Amino acid sequence: MNWSELKLNSDGHLPVVVQDFETGVVLMVGYMNEESFLKTLETREMWYFSRSRQELWHKGATSGHIQKVKELWIDCDSDTLLAKVDQVGKSACHTGSVSCFFSPVTLPVR
Amino acid sequence: MNWSELKLNSDGHLPVVVQDFETGVVLMVGYMNEESFLKTLETREMWYFSRSRQELWHKGATSGHIQKVKELWIDCDSDTLLAKVDQVGKSACHTGSVSCFFSPVTLPVR
Repeated sequence: MNWSELKLNSDGHLPVVVQDFETGVVLMVGYMNEESFLKTLETREMWYFSRSRQELWHKGATSGHIQKVKELWIDCDSDTLLAKVDQVGKSACHTGSVSCFFSPVTLPVR
Repeated sequence: MNWSELKLNSDGHLPVVVQDFETGVVLMVGYMNEESFLKTLETREMWYFSRSRQELWHKGATSGHIQKVKELWIDCDSDTLLAKVDQVGKSACHTGSVSCFFSPVTLPVR
């Protein structure tokens, strides 16, 4: 799988769903540019492109909460990656939560 | 959770990670506009905005493979939704696969 085979979004990035390989918990969604994609393959740790800081981001470089790549999967139309990872520190979110998805959206009563 | 509280991507859409609520399998990633978000809440079935067809898309309307909403979660920066669903027909992908993520990305040997 080469970067040129991937379909990028309007910002030129590839969305990545990150899942804990043991528990199946969806931890976060990140975005990659070519450099972070190549770094991820090379180091077997997750690298992203930080959209807020507009820079390469080695997840866990400061917090220690790195994500070791166990499996990578690409979807049927080659526009989204699924990374199954070993989340060091068992916390993917900057809030300290295991997952970034900790806020429920209430469905309306009917 | 109102649509106006969400942070949209450059196309004005909200990415949605869709996970089987029983097996934990990540089935697909779809995109919502406001109309599909409201329809999803109202009907408790997944609706998307089809980026290829540029139209509202009631998942399963033609295939019968609808997705019944079990839980909705929003992430820490309110820019991504996680939907846990009951996937009718046990196949989310148009290829007939359970999940759209069926192609492994090989990590380089080291």
